[in-house]
Amino acid sequence: MRAELIDGKAIAASVRADVARDVAGLRERGVVPGLTVVLVGDDMASATYVGAKEKASREAGMAGGTIRLPADTTQDALLSLITQLNGDAAVHGILVQMPLPKHIDPDTVIRHIRPDKDVDGFHPENVGKLLIGHTDGFVSCTPAGVIEMLLRSGVETRGAEVVVVGRSNIVGKPMAALLVQARAGGDATVTICHSRTKDLASHTRRADILIVAAGRAEMITGDMIKPGAVVIDVGMNSVPDATRAKGSRLCGDVHFASAAEVASRITPVPGGVGPMTIAMLLRNTVRAAERTVS
Amino acid sequence: MRAELIDGKAIAASVRADVARDVAGLRERGVVPGLTVVLVGDDMASATYVGAKEKASREAGMAGGTIRLPADTTQDALLSLITQLNGDAAVHGILVQMPLPKHIDPDTVIRHIRPDKDVDGFHPENVGKLLIGHTDGFVSCTPAGVIEMLLRSGVETRGAEVVVVGRSNIVGKPMAALLVQARAGGDATVTICHSRTKDLASHTRRADILIVAAGRAEMITGDMIKPGAVVIDVGMNSVPDATRAKGSRLCGDVHFASAAEVASRITPVPGGVGPMTIAMLLRNTVRAAERTVS
Repeated sequence: MRAELIDGKAIAASVRADVARDVAGLRERGVVPGLTVVLVGDDMASATYVGAKEKASREAGMAGGTIRLPADTTQDALLSLITQLNGDAAVHGILVQMPLPKHIDPDTVIRHIRPDKDVDGFHPENVGKLLIGHTDGFVSCTPAGVIEMLLRSGVETRGAEVVVVGRSNIVGKPMAALLVQARAGGDATVTICHSRTKDLASHTRRADILIVAAGRAEMITGDMIKPGAVVIDVGMNSVPDATRAKGSRLCGDVHFASAAEVASRITPVPGGVGPMTIAMLLRNTVRAAERTVS
Repeated sequence: MRAELIDGKAIAASVRADVARDVAGLRERGVVPGLTVVLVGDDMASATYVGAKEKASREAGMAGGTIRLPADTTQDALLSLITQLNGDAAVHGILVQMPLPKHIDPDTVIRHIRPDKDVDGFHPENVGKLLIGHTDGFVSCTPAGVIEMLLRSGVETRGAEVVVVGRSNIVGKPMAALLVQARAGGDATVTICHSRTKDLASHTRRADILIVAAGRAEMITGDMIKPGAVVIDVGMNSVPDATRAKGSRLCGDVHFASAAEVASRITPVPGGVGPMTIAMLLRNTVRAAERTVS
């Protein structure tokens, strides 16, 4: 293996330590940052994510917790709850865990959250501020985490060729929008590729920094990567693996073994981008609380 | 000259005819679409633009007009006026002409306009909806006009390599965001280039569709264009020209003569993208009015 690992766990721990310090500072001023997570239904994966978010916010010294609602909760009931949280001064951040049950429209729910409490950064107003380049909104946690990883790893984005594979609203689109801004962690020449892209490899092979968030297991192989490139793998897939006790293994959107022979630096899966997401959620929440006192 | 001209004037006229038909339909239902333009100060160029917008909206059968305020108008007075227009049911679209005098913060003003009356599409909520892909907001007029030109000219964006030169909030960024959406007029593989881009020509030469909005006169020359490409020139510059009576001439960001030898289709300047901008403003206004009755 040629590539150096970018250790998401370590970087996330460092971000979380910064957040804990900021929380302590706010507590001295009488403000306890509060994050309220809303979970509708009993999806196993969602429950796991929510548990991790709750634990991390508690460890950072925050208040709040998780409100668990039954799967048959009506949209109106959920909106009423959000209205109440919007008006609750102790709640600085509101996160409604996705996906929601099919009878609830996620866009209606997201738009109902006060933008200044939308620590997931999904409200159109926050997405708009991100694209415009205003920094008084919230940036969704995964792309924000990738930028933070690059900054803390000393990867220069200015003037770099960055190729983003994937155009989701959660990762690909905000990721590209961040990278093009005229500031540190931006100033890149950005190409956004997706399922309609012709000759994907011709793009990925141009990338000084390749960011993959396509949701397809190991779709990017070493031969698609420019020698010396930095590879950020946002994917998280479970694939069958008979050699494992549970019959499956986790992998990213990048074929790690072959990519690591070509790249100069690469994020592992797990332990790469994943831990950054929760760290950035905490940072968004502490910023939400800071904005109420400044 | 090899390239066929894309006639922005003709396409804009066709859009404006559609708008006039929609306005007539709304009038039959008792709704007169109203566009109010606010002009602060006496900048000559702004006065010309505003005059053109007022004339076009009148020709389309709309109500409204221009409110002209002195250059020393305070920000608070301007915000009060906007509050009043926000609450006026006869005003469906509000446009505050930029640039504003230096003592007024444009972002504060833009954010003060009700998003559902922000027919310029500059409010963060509208910008966010654009990036997310929601179609119930307003898209800023120039990038919307470029997409409309491509659609009406039968230029296929799906799977095309599109290179956007320029990353302004008015054109470059929303342009790239539109082109990447999963729908007609989108689905392109998009690269956004700017002043920090290294080896610009290596990108522009890849483009099946090249969209230039950099604000630098004739910076894109024929040798930077892929043979057969479609070239959209958003630039509008005045350059010295001793052979003209007034000592200057208008030109785009593309060196037309050399580009037209290489491209398959190209927009002229003037008469290309320019006329589309006002047409899309009218369309946004009629949509704003339609949304109040549906």
